[in-house]
Amino acid sequence: MNTTMAPEQLIHQLNWRYATKQFDPKRKIPDRDWAALEQALLLTPSSCGLQPWAFIEVKDPAVRAKLQAVSWGQSQIVDASHLVVLAYKSNLGEGDLDAHIKRIAEVRGVEVKELAGFRAMMAGLLIQGLDGAGRAAWARNQVYIALGNLLTAAAVLGIDACPMEGIDRAQYDAILDLSKKGLATAMVATLGYRSDADKYGGLPKVRFSKKDVFIEI
Amino acid sequence: MNTTMAPEQLIHQLNWRYATKQFDPKRKIPDRDWAALEQALLLTPSSCGLQPWAFIEVKDPAVRAKLQAVSWGQSQIVDASHLVVLAYKSNLGEGDLDAHIKRIAEVRGVEVKELAGFRAMMAGLLIQGLDGAGRAAWARNQVYIALGNLLTAAAVLGIDACPMEGIDRAQYDAILDLSKKGLATAMVATLGYRSDADKYGGLPKVRFSKKDVFIEI
Repeated sequence: MNTTMAPEQLIHQLNWRYATKQFDPKRKIPDRDWAALEQALLLTPSSCGLQPWAFIEVKDPAVRAKLQAVSWGQSQIVDASHLVVLAYKSNLGEGDLDAHIKRIAEVRGVEVKELAGFRAMMAGLLIQGLDGAGRAAWARNQVYIALGNLLTAAAVLGIDACPMEGIDRAQYDAILDLSKKGLATAMVATLGYRSDADKYGGLPKVRFSKKDVFIEI
Repeated sequence: MNTTMAPEQLIHQLNWRYATKQFDPKRKIPDRDWAALEQALLLTPSSCGLQPWAFIEVKDPAVRAKLQAVSWGQSQIVDASHLVVLAYKSNLGEGDLDAHIKRIAEVRGVEVKELAGFRAMMAGLLIQGLDGAGRAAWARNQVYIALGNLLTAAAVLGIDACPMEGIDRAQYDAILDLSKKGLATAMVATLGYRSDADKYGGLPKVRFSKKDVFIEI
C-alpha cells in the first residue's frame, strides 16, 4: 500500500477545506474516520514530547446546547457531527515531567534513571526557566499544534471542520468542569460535513500573496 | 483523481514521522514537493483569517551556520534539506487589519465598506480587547497552527521534519534582522530526509494512553 499523498492531492484538499459555517446536521462522521482523527490528535508532536493537553469530546446534546450559548450562538456547536474542546494543562509542574518520563521508560523499556538528563533539561526549560504564567502560555501554544494537525488531518480525509477561538473560554471551563482537573480551554473544533446551503463554501479562499508572507535569505 | 487519503494511510504516515535528529545531508526535497509545502504553509488557517506571520526560508549556508550556533549546535540546522523559521507579527495593529480587509475585498470582489462590520469585530477582539503583550501572544499562538499544519503536510508527503522551539529566539531575530520588520521568531522547522544512522528513527513513539488524554462528556 502506498501510504503517502501526491503533492497535488494535498494541495487540492487544503484548498477544499474552509472554516465551515453551516454543517449538515444529518451527516455523521463514520466511526473509522473519527477513530483516525482521535489517533491523529493523540499523535500530535509537542515540545519535549510533553503533550500538555486534553481533548474533550462533547457528545451530550444538552452540554452542546450550553456551549452554544457561550459561543456567540454559532450553529456549528450543535449541528456538527463531532465537537472537541482542545484544552491545555494550566498548572504544568514536576508531576507532569515525571508522568512523561515514566511513560518513556514504559514504552521504550528503559530505566527512569537513564532519563535523568532529559528530565533535568525539561525542568530547566519549563520549571526553572518559566513562571506559572509562562508555563501556561507555553502549554497553550502546544495545543495550537494539535489544532493545526487536526485541521490538516481532517482535510486530507475529506472531513469538514470549523475551529473557533472566539468563544467564552472561562464559561467553557465552567461548563466542562475543567479547572479542578488542571485544564483550561484553548479553543473548540467542530467537525462533520458542510451543508450545501453554506454560502461560505463557494467563496474564494483569502490568503496573502506568497511574496507578502515568505522571506528568502 | 481521488484526492483524499484513507484513514489507515494517514495514521501510517503520522506514525512514520518523528522529530528527526539526523538528516541525510545529501538528499534534497524535490522542487515540486517543496512548492507544495510552501503552499500548505500559505494556506494555513488562522483566527479571523489574519495570518499574523511570516515564513523565512534560510538558504544561505553561512546564515544557517550562524543559526546552528544559537540552536545548541544541533546538526539539523545545517544538514536538513530545507530550513524555515516561523515568525509572528509582534506589533500587530490597525494596519494589519486594513491589509487583511483590503485583501478580502480584492480576492472576493467586494467593497471595503461592506466589510466594516467584520473589521469592527476584529478590532474589538484584538485591538480594544488585548494589550500589546496579549496581541503578541495571540499572534504567536497562530504560528503554532502553521507548525502543526506543516508537520502533518510533510508527514503525508513522506518528508521528514524536526521542529525546534528550544532555540535562542532573540538571537534568531538578530541574525535574520526580524525586529525592524515587526516580526519575532516563534520556532524553526527543518525538513528533508532522515539519515539511516539516526538511532531515534527506530525508537517506539511515546504518547500517553488514549484514556489519559481524552475525556468524553
